[in-house]
Amino acid sequence: MSDTFEILCLGNELLIGKIVNSNAQWLANYITKLGGKVRRITVVGDDISDIAAALRESLSRKSAFILTTGGLGPTFDDKTMDAVATALEKPLELNDDALLMVKNKYQQYEKVTKKKIELTPARLKMAQLPKDSVPIPNPVGTAPAVLSTDAASTILSLPGVPSEMKAIFEASVVPLIRRLSRTHVVYEISLRVTGIIESELAPLLDQVMREIPDVYVKSHPRAAEPIPLLELHVTTRATSEKDGKDRVEAAEKMICQLIAEHGGKTSPLKP
Amino acid sequence: MSDTFEILCLGNELLIGKIVNSNAQWLANYITKLGGKVRRITVVGDDISDIAAALRESLSRKSAFILTTGGLGPTFDDKTMDAVATALEKPLELNDDALLMVKNKYQQYEKVTKKKIELTPARLKMAQLPKDSVPIPNPVGTAPAVLSTDAASTILSLPGVPSEMKAIFEASVVPLIRRLSRTHVVYEISLRVTGIIESELAPLLDQVMREIPDVYVKSHPRAAEPIPLLELHVTTRATSEKDGKDRVEAAEKMICQLIAEHGGKTSPLKP
Repeated sequence: MSDTFEILCLGNELLIGKIVNSNAQWLANYITKLGGKVRRITVVGDDISDIAAALRESLSRKSAFILTTGGLGPTFDDKTMDAVATALEKPLELNDDALLMVKNKYQQYEKVTKKKIELTPARLKMAQLPKDSVPIPNPVGTAPAVLSTDAASTILSLPGVPSEMKAIFEASVVPLIRRLSRTHVVYEISLRVTGIIESELAPLLDQVMREIPDVYVKSHPRAAEPIPLLELHVTTRATSEKDGKDRVEAAEKMICQLIAEHGGKTSPLKP
Repeated sequence: MSDTFEILCLGNELLIGKIVNSNAQWLANYITKLGGKVRRITVVGDDISDIAAALRESLSRKSAFILTTGGLGPTFDDKTMDAVATALEKPLELNDDALLMVKNKYQQYEKVTKKKIELTPARLKMAQLPKDSVPIPNPVGTAPAVLSTDAASTILSLPGVPSEMKAIFEASVVPLIRRLSRTHVVYEISLRVTGIIESELAPLLDQVMREIPDVYVKSHPRAAEPIPLLELHVTTRATSEKDGKDRVEAAEKMICQLIAEHGGKTSPLKP
């Protein structure tokens, strides 16, 4: 259980379809490559009770990590810290380390703009953290990311601006995940399949997965039936690169043979 | 409550970040333009108990519509109907109308391919629906979409392949939504703001939203602080186009004035 994840993305702009959730894809892809397993992605709007409810549900599923994106900035609809405090039943308080980070940022900005920037309530809000939470430096923007914990899970709250989210994730979050998930690697190959339609292929893939445990084969039609053009992804999670490779290659061999017996053709596909 | 929605996307490929969730964005955007309100987007993998749990949670929140994408095809990991049946506590059974749709598709494919296509168990699976559910024709692919209901919600299960999902949504789902949501329109304008940073702008936007009820103003930094470049979206939901326009234009006027008083500049932004 130490390498399971949930991703919780906060923002009305996602619920109205103004933007695509590229943050969730980027994080899910990164976590998977590190050997972690994402169990659920949730999007809710900028509403404290909706966010707190989603967080409580995630906590009840006891994933090792809950990553949130969005809602850390200075505007009225940045409500993540309020919601984390609510979900963890802790008070919000001015965090000295976070305050120092925010102050330093504005001092840098003052040097650049040659203009006094007051620490208004909106700006101080970025240093208001749930009790016992820890700020994580933001190398790109102003609002620090935040680490909070309950008995079973670590909540990592990241900004929604992709450049800030990615910079913090790579600098500070990845080392944490690597330590906990280093026992797993993901090994995958992809195949292009022609000459056989998905509904004919389905029972063959079932057979492969029955005979070679821990291998996962997913087919994606690349044209509507009856045009027989598909992509296959053969994936496994293993404790070593060699084990993963051996298992996937055994599955690949069996798949290619079964498809050939049914009049189809396979070719390797670059990932 | 008759125009609230949840979107539930099913597929391991989303949880490993192989693809971005463009289906959720497309649906959320379409629903918003129709006047509906999306409250939550959830992604879970191809696991019956995970899908059924997510469905039960959605049903407990009593949104009028729950749209699912993915998991309707012939392969072993297409588990949506199983999960809907589990969540609604209904048996799965062969649906005669769905069977007719699937048979007709394969007869068409036989004409094109001049090859006999058997109705294997994998193919018949696409006609196995929860008791009392109704199939919806798929003008593009093979698997029908499915309408299921409980006391408070309508579950609409759509395929995950975007071309099939969109075709069914536009042909069959939109008329249903339009009827229930015709009392609301969404009106929005966008502004480009320079010369003022987000943390300075935040209290001004709070003031606008306090003084003009039902208007929602969201700021998006387009550069890291201290570079003062932002986009503003001013949105309202109203019972007529005119009401929406009046309200948003009053907010726009106030925003432009406040920003000018603080040394910033605004210009209209094409949506």
